Amino acid sequence: MAPLNVALVGVGKIARDQHIPAIAANPGLTLAATASRNASVEGVDAYPDLAALLAAREDIDVVSLCTPPQVRHADARLALEAGRHVMLEKPPGATLAEVHDLIALAAARGVTLFATWHSRQAHAVEATRGWLADKTIRKVEVIWKEDVRRWHPGQEWIWDAGGLGVFDPGINALSVLTAIFPRPLHITRADLTFPGNRDTPIAADLTFSDPGGADVTAVFDWRQEGPQTWDVRLTTDAGSAVLSSGGALLHVDGVETAVGQDREYPGLYARLLDLVGTDTSETDLSPMVHVADAFTLGRRLTTDAFHF
Amino acid sequence: MAPLNVALVGVGKIARDQHIPAIAANPGLTLAATASRNASVEGVDAYPDLAALLAAREDIDVVSLCTPPQVRHADARLALEAGRHVMLEKPPGATLAEVHDLIALAAARGVTLFATWHSRQAHAVEATRGWLADKTIRKVEVIWKEDVRRWHPGQEWIWDAGGLGVFDPGINALSVLTAIFPRPLHITRADLTFPGNRDTPIAADLTFSDPGGADVTAVFDWRQEGPQTWDVRLTTDAGSAVLSSGGALLHVDGVETAVGQDREYPGLYARLLDLVGTDTSETDLSPMVHVADAFTLGRRLTTDAFHF
Repeated sequence: MAPLNVALVGVGKIARDQHIPAIAANPGLTLAATASRNASVEGVDAYPDLAALLAAREDIDVVSLCTPPQVRHADARLALEAGRHVMLEKPPGATLAEVHDLIALAAARGVTLFATWHSRQAHAVEATRGWLADKTIRKVEVIWKEDVRRWHPGQEWIWDAGGLGVFDPGINALSVLTAIFPRPLHITRADLTFPGNRDTPIAADLTFSDPGGADVTAVFDWRQEGPQTWDVRLTTDAGSAVLSSGGALLHVDGVETAVGQDREYPGLYARLLDLVGTDTSETDLSPMVHVADAFTLGRRLTTDAFHF
Repeated sequence: MAPLNVALVGVGKIARDQHIPAIAANPGLTLAATASRNASVEGVDAYPDLAALLAAREDIDVVSLCTPPQVRHADARLALEAGRHVMLEKPPGATLAEVHDLIALAAARGVTLFATWHSRQAHAVEATRGWLADKTIRKVEVIWKEDVRRWHPGQEWIWDAGGLGVFDPGINALSVLTAIFPRPLHITRADLTFPGNRDTPIAADLTFSDPGGADVTAVFDWRQEGPQTWDVRLTTDAGSAVLSSGGALLHVDGVETAVGQDREYPGLYARLLDLVGTDTSETDLSPMVHVADAFTLGRRLTTDAFHF
């Protein structure tokens, strides 16, 4: 098969840090065009918007959307209507209903829709799922604490309604939790802490109900200076484990059992090739459902205003 | 077929106003038991909770849940695990994830799960759907304004996290909108107004995106004294119409075209008999998805404290 031609929409931080290197490293893919109002990639044809790109470039097979979730649906619809495969950064949209619309449209057009969760590709996630599978789980503590100024410098959209606030990293934690936990969970309590001047929360405490009886909680906080924490602590009837560094490392009873290089975005683009090659879509929305449930169910607390 | 034995869980306002008369009026159903901490129905066996009821009464075919949504999932699960059919008042739960769990469990047990939307049974809803079906829709204005003190006197749970606030009536409007509108919609903007002392909103303004290009909005307000408004105003290329009184009346170009007696809950229980008779479930969650999307996407405004 000739390499697939990929167009990137939205040439911002995540595109430069992750998507462009991952596409460049995959011999099955070529970065053939970009669409962005005010950025471009050296040596790659640039268009001011996706409509212009699609009209000019029949050779584009896949449109990969890295724009903020609030504006992603219109572009995804354009690309699907034009018969192109579509890959969505996380979260796959600002609302569940708009993603349901995209799922139906991709099915109707017979093209691939891939709602990605990059953290699920982290090195030790699969090993952790396997380790948990045959154990009685007593307790799961998800702890995701980072410094928003360090990881999202100046990104105003993340604080706007629909930008999810601390659930932007938190949804990564939820994508890992839903990948490793053997049963569906649902949220029974959520405390959401909003800066007085922002539409989205800076911190969240979640309690889940597990039909199997495990005690499952998550805490997200964007005010963590110094060392950063992206851990899932697991207690079972047969030992305990910590999945740390956002899913990259697994320690079982204190012993390092899985460690490897970061391959999250290379893993996503490899999966994209599989999906296109087998005419299938992958659109698990469970992390996004938990976020919507947290907002619906949440107690709202107010804290100090946030300024970059 | 012998009448189905129905057990009601939660003997509160909605049970007395609607469920008990509707069951009594249907020859295919018998109200055979109730479960409630502190209420009962004269002449009907009463149990303190559903677990006791299920253990004592193998003859109960259907469990109809009228308890607040925050506590409904555990009882629904008990009933489904015991192999009984389950009917859920709206909204079907406090979270989408918990309803997904019930849908999977009902399918695994081979019993009927019916997530009801009583407003869809209102007299003129089906006529309005038919009237819209062959027209180009330009504008839809949903206006749902009522006095919370009149309709929810002293109901504290409705103001608690998970109780939905003004979306408790608003979800009725959304159940009508999703029934009559010919395409899936998604919310693009939501302004939610919270009383300073409450976890749920007293008012909401919603803007939807329609792939077909119609201008669709909804306004919900719980501060309406005097005349109450439950209207959907429709403008098309071939005339305009108003669906009013919560779906009971349809006027087309000013002329009354559909009017009839209230049959919402009798309609739900007739539908329950159809579903059980054909071994099927009905679990359209689209009204609840829009509510979750509104909370996720919403701008939060604060207004005066609310006291009954």
